Amino acid sequence: MSSSCQQPWGVSVDAVAPYGAPHVGAGFSSDVYARRLHEATTATAAAGLAALIVTPGYDLRYLVGSRAQTFERLTALVLPIGRAPTVVVPRLELASLKESAVAELKLAVRDWTDGEDPYKLVVDALGRAPVATAVTDSMPALHLLPLAERLGVTPVLATHVLRQLRMIKDHSEIDALRKAGAAIDRVHARVPDFLVPGRTEADVAADIADAIVAEGHSSVAFIIVGSGPHGADPHHECSERVLEAGDIVVVDIGGTHEPGYHSDSTRTYSLGDPDPKVAQQYSVLQRAQQAAVAAVRPGVTAEQVDAVARGVLAQAGLADAFVHRTGHGIGLSVHEEPYIVAGNRLPLRQGMAFSVEPGIYFPGRWGARIEDIVVVNPYGAEPVNHRPHELTVVPLPVGG
Amino acid sequence: MSSSCQQPWGVSVDAVAPYGAPHVGAGFSSDVYARRLHEATTATAAAGLAALIVTPGYDLRYLVGSRAQTFERLTALVLPIGRAPTVVVPRLELASLKESAVAELKLAVRDWTDGEDPYKLVVDALGRAPVATAVTDSMPALHLLPLAERLGVTPVLATHVLRQLRMIKDHSEIDALRKAGAAIDRVHARVPDFLVPGRTEADVAADIADAIVAEGHSSVAFIIVGSGPHGADPHHECSERVLEAGDIVVVDIGGTHEPGYHSDSTRTYSLGDPDPKVAQQYSVLQRAQQAAVAAVRPGVTAEQVDAVARGVLAQAGLADAFVHRTGHGIGLSVHEEPYIVAGNRLPLRQGMAFSVEPGIYFPGRWGARIEDIVVVNPYGAEPVNHRPHELTVVPLPVGG
Repeated sequence: MSSSCQQPWGVSVDAVAPYGAPHVGAGFSSDVYARRLHEATTATAAAGLAALIVTPGYDLRYLVGSRAQTFERLTALVLPIGRAPTVVVPRLELASLKESAVAELKLAVRDWTDGEDPYKLVVDALGRAPVATAVTDSMPALHLLPLAERLGVTPVLATHVLRQLRMIKDHSEIDALRKAGAAIDRVHARVPDFLVPGRTEADVAADIADAIVAEGHSSVAFIIVGSGPHGADPHHECSERVLEAGDIVVVDIGGTHEPGYHSDSTRTYSLGDPDPKVAQQYSVLQRAQQAAVAAVRPGVTAEQVDAVARGVLAQAGLADAFVHRTGHGIGLSVHEEPYIVAGNRLPLRQGMAFSVEPGIYFPGRWGARIEDIVVVNPYGAEPVNHRPHELTVVPLPVGG
Repeated sequence: MSSSCQQPWGVSVDAVAPYGAPHVGAGFSSDVYARRLHEATTATAAAGLAALIVTPGYDLRYLVGSRAQTFERLTALVLPIGRAPTVVVPRLELASLKESAVAELKLAVRDWTDGEDPYKLVVDALGRAPVATAVTDSMPALHLLPLAERLGVTPVLATHVLRQLRMIKDHSEIDALRKAGAAIDRVHARVPDFLVPGRTEADVAADIADAIVAEGHSSVAFIIVGSGPHGADPHHECSERVLEAGDIVVVDIGGTHEPGYHSDSTRTYSLGDPDPKVAQQYSVLQRAQQAAVAAVRPGVTAEQVDAVARGVLAQAGLADAFVHRTGHGIGLSVHEEPYIVAGNRLPLRQGMAFSVEPGIYFPGRWGARIEDIVVVNPYGAEPVNHRPHELTVVPLPVGG
């Protein structure tokens, strides 16, 4: 049995099941990264800024395919307008650049050793200071504050600069999201077998973890098994609560699919036939989710989609039961732009990918949520998840 | 088999082995957190600042025992001088506060829902703006930049404010580090059985992952198996390289031990008897590590300890082979202050805990490193690792 070497910061996937494919290089061809670097530089210039600085995280992975995870030692991709990009990297981490497209792209690499001032190297790569820069949204204060001091100008968030680029998925990204969606659908198809009264939420979560990897993901991203009253907490994870006949169970699960794109799908299950009131309220939720998906098309705003889901629930007196936003973008990150939320007037565009996941929550009693990932196409929304949206009734064991 | 519910963002530990103890609450008693909050507030005032703001990460865990991992929605502990602390938290995450000491400490909680401005809630908790604040070093730019704008003053890093508090471990923390050290020693005792020519580094890493959990850790933190030329890259993780007779193998491993403290120990192994030149150079490394540990005592500076290790290697002509700092602090985080590095004139004090891990690296050929975690006591250093420091010769299979 071989372990997945690229996951040393968690338990190896292959220690659970021998399915995980080892990562090979950056994920996409270097042409893809060259195009992204070009577009990021163009967007930076268009924002009136002189440079973009990206430390490890999803933006770095998006731009050069690097999975670097350094924290206290600065690693940074420096993209100045009108100068060649430079990667500033601790000498210790030089070898890890092999896993990215940095070498194939022939980017300048400036390594540093403990005792050197890496922020000075960033300013050198920029050619001068003060410089108006955008920084990746995950840059920690540890690096941002000293860097801002050296730059002489408070940076702005690259979120705004990279927004369009990161939000509009290209064909290879959409294909990756479809594959991830199909994989999590296969897991949901198996979930009823795991939901047996007498087992704990944690037992079910362990089976789901195995299934997420077995069905083709390279790793587990998250598992929520919210049974009975726990279903009323949208971010409950799992617990030692024992499943009982009659429970409504929210199962919200996702994994990472090579080359790093995420699945995320929620279905709600009923252990035995549901109470008629529950079934009635669930049916309103199902209409709300369906209406929100149907509302998606280019030009509609993110908040309009949220309002559609909320409107259906409000008409049935369930407005107060829906305590979170309708959805979030997805890609290399599980949660990214666009957020489908009140106040977000962003017009949807072809290629955007996000969740549509209204829920209803009754504290101390039960909850339900239905979630598909959809991709905006010229005519509307293409869901990447296809499991039935009905409350799935899991038959109780006979004579149990 | 039950899964470890507190690890939904990675593969469950219990999916690997049924040993992981479920986390229970915050880790220490609420008295411990009350004292830490008091001392953090005192240190903030002493630094001439009006408030400390802590988003999820090690500082939040240290101060209130919270393991929150929210990113795009702001969770923040706000500690103003002369006012009661407030926890600003997305309503979705309210339930997760149960896992922390926030309720027992009776801290004010201000929850917010999507669409509200959480940065305004922080300013409200402070009572006014502009306010000179310290922020946790892991606060992402995503929150730091809008917060800085609302505060009207650029924050400073809380690293400086919390340094003494986080660096000086109390008895319960030292006890946790000793337990973690004993657990990783038990893993190293088993490593020779895993190192068989014909197996890959990844095979060995998978066995080590299982052993780290089996020997009492709640999760794997990192695994480096650097064989032959890979040993010359200090941050190599593992690969499909097949072990060969004659390989020198660097094994640098660590895990998390409840309530969240880390082990980290490196030993170097030789598959069969080493070349005499290798043995001779390794013996210099062993003397360097031993001399550095012997140099540790209160009042000695961090850079002096680094210089001792470097000096022993330099005298033998091996200065260029030692390409990284001598060590790093350890606790809730694998890498934290104090850093044992040139330029760090910090005087060591009783209760500090850090690694002493010189290494020698010969690119394309081999490398070696020896690492113990030590705790400063009134007289010198107490190592928490006790495996032999010699190059451990693993006998080759007979007739293999």
